[in-house]
Amino acid sequence: MKKLINDPHDVVKETLEGFQAAFPNLVKVHYEPDWVERAVAKGDGKVALVSGGGSGHEPLHAGYVGVGMLDAAVPGAVFTSPTPDPIVEATRAVDRGAGVVHIVKNYTGDVLNFETAAELADMDDIKVETVLVDDDCAVEDSLYTAGRRGVAGTVLVEKIAGAAAERGDDLATVAGIGRRVNENMRSMGLALGACTVPHAGKPSFELGEDEVELGIGIHGEPGYRRGKMEPADALAEELYTRVRDDLGLQARDKVIALVNGMGGTPESELFIVFRKVAELLDRDEIVLARPMVGNYVTSLEMPGCSVTLLRVDDEMLDLFDAPAHTPAWVVAEKA
Amino acid sequence: MKKLINDPHDVVKETLEGFQAAFPNLVKVHYEPDWVERAVAKGDGKVALVSGGGSGHEPLHAGYVGVGMLDAAVPGAVFTSPTPDPIVEATRAVDRGAGVVHIVKNYTGDVLNFETAAELADMDDIKVETVLVDDDCAVEDSLYTAGRRGVAGTVLVEKIAGAAAERGDDLATVAGIGRRVNENMRSMGLALGACTVPHAGKPSFELGEDEVELGIGIHGEPGYRRGKMEPADALAEELYTRVRDDLGLQARDKVIALVNGMGGTPESELFIVFRKVAELLDRDEIVLARPMVGNYVTSLEMPGCSVTLLRVDDEMLDLFDAPAHTPAWVVAEKA
Repeated sequence: MKKLINDPHDVVKETLEGFQAAFPNLVKVHYEPDWVERAVAKGDGKVALVSGGGSGHEPLHAGYVGVGMLDAAVPGAVFTSPTPDPIVEATRAVDRGAGVVHIVKNYTGDVLNFETAAELADMDDIKVETVLVDDDCAVEDSLYTAGRRGVAGTVLVEKIAGAAAERGDDLATVAGIGRRVNENMRSMGLALGACTVPHAGKPSFELGEDEVELGIGIHGEPGYRRGKMEPADALAEELYTRVRDDLGLQARDKVIALVNGMGGTPESELFIVFRKVAELLDRDEIVLARPMVGNYVTSLEMPGCSVTLLRVDDEMLDLFDAPAHTPAWVVAEKA
Repeated sequence: MKKLINDPHDVVKETLEGFQAAFPNLVKVHYEPDWVERAVAKGDGKVALVSGGGSGHEPLHAGYVGVGMLDAAVPGAVFTSPTPDPIVEATRAVDRGAGVVHIVKNYTGDVLNFETAAELADMDDIKVETVLVDDDCAVEDSLYTAGRRGVAGTVLVEKIAGAAAERGDDLATVAGIGRRVNENMRSMGLALGACTVPHAGKPSFELGEDEVELGIGIHGEPGYRRGKMEPADALAEELYTRVRDDLGLQARDKVIALVNGMGGTPESELFIVFRKVAELLDRDEIVLARPMVGNYVTSLEMPGCSVTLLRVDDEMLDLFDAPAHTPAWVVAEKA
């Protein structure tokens, strides 16, 4: 294992220290337990959003803390759910009297610990609604999941529900919009290789020199098939087609299309995949309403990518376009 | 070689096609010869900026085309200078009567081809000033360079000179500010491994399982030493110290500090390196005026990073903070 780290057990703490040093005007990091909030808290009476999960998917989640997105993020150890303690601490701290939405990727540990935190918050009379994200249509049930996994689409739930909270929607409405995003969204990933969790010290799986894993999870969970490497166009078409069909997209539907990098893939390759996705959408007369290409939800240094399609209505698009100011995603005010 | 590409010879063209599909409102891509301009051209009477160089460093340069930064970018083949043709075509197209600044990384091919393009533009009575970027203080002369190499600091020249052009400075002033940035800036990189140029098909060099290359170039050019892998803190301190000393930084100087990812390094590791750089600046009583962490100037999927320090004055900081709207860098208007 060769990594730019010190002691493998200090990776999360030191990452957060660097993150704090890099964004002092945007975020405030708390330690032991670890969680991240906005440097300037939201005004009273607005719904707050808390998300979290294992580290190693940066910029998710802490990179999306800020105006227009999350109020707090709770990072666990690498690929490990945070415990209920920091979740409930964050929930209490960011509640502005209008309740808190928990955005939770569907992994057994995350679901349990956010549930416990929500119960503890309830004892303090803080209303919590949970939006479960399970956009990965590769497999049912997986290494750490009952049902489908939550993957790259999580960032779209955070953006769109975050904008709803920012404009002043109430708790049920914000949670409802978050769930609508999740229901209208599917994702599918592939990997050309594994990543190495620092405290494990070796790659999480092995792939042959000429192999690709289709339907990979963001923790390296097995996909639905492993095969010989193929040209980008063929791989992009396989991901796209499965996502499209699972979501039941029709001609004239409008979508946000996200080609997400897993961490170790050059941007040029993501654009090559995106090019094919855009071409297929056009062929199928599905309207590409908003394009997204980049490393939004990663798996450490894993080489690979995922394709997410979100069927949008006009309200979702307005919220997607609303201003945001976070370390990893800035949407400027329209001139 | 395992990459998300189709034919290795189509990598640049297909990347540009995907880039165009992803950012239709921000950029317009021209093909054969390949170059990229803003979707909405700058107003008459303002200085224009053109940069370019070999592909494989994305988001540099095309990702920085837009309001507040470049007017056009000219990508060559991977790690290969563009020819004069697209450079002069871009220069002619973006000139608004106030002249054009060429921002050129110091590699022999780029210098020659931009020089030829400037001479051709001169025949059309377009005034061109060139800002040469040579911020890499690792080595004098290198595989493709006489003198020092131009590396990650290029993005700071593009941002700060771009803002000067946007506010209406004349040609000599914009070029002068670009040169002032270059003179007050040094960079140094390291790699934990090589990257593979698609049309070459194999890694550009070999590093042992436990080795690191200090002073690496962005095309994998040799650095000043190869040694055993060390903790991130030790490596960050070595990069920082050499950059600080070469730049002659003093207590109370103000700097912009950029920890740049080479493409294959997880964001968490970049923050761990940044954490140490911030700590050392603090120890040396050098003021961290603006922090930057991310993949700004990459080398395909190379695992590694670089440290850039730019000694700033108030004008440079104002220009750094000025609004920008490009595919890869958005600076929002101050509220």
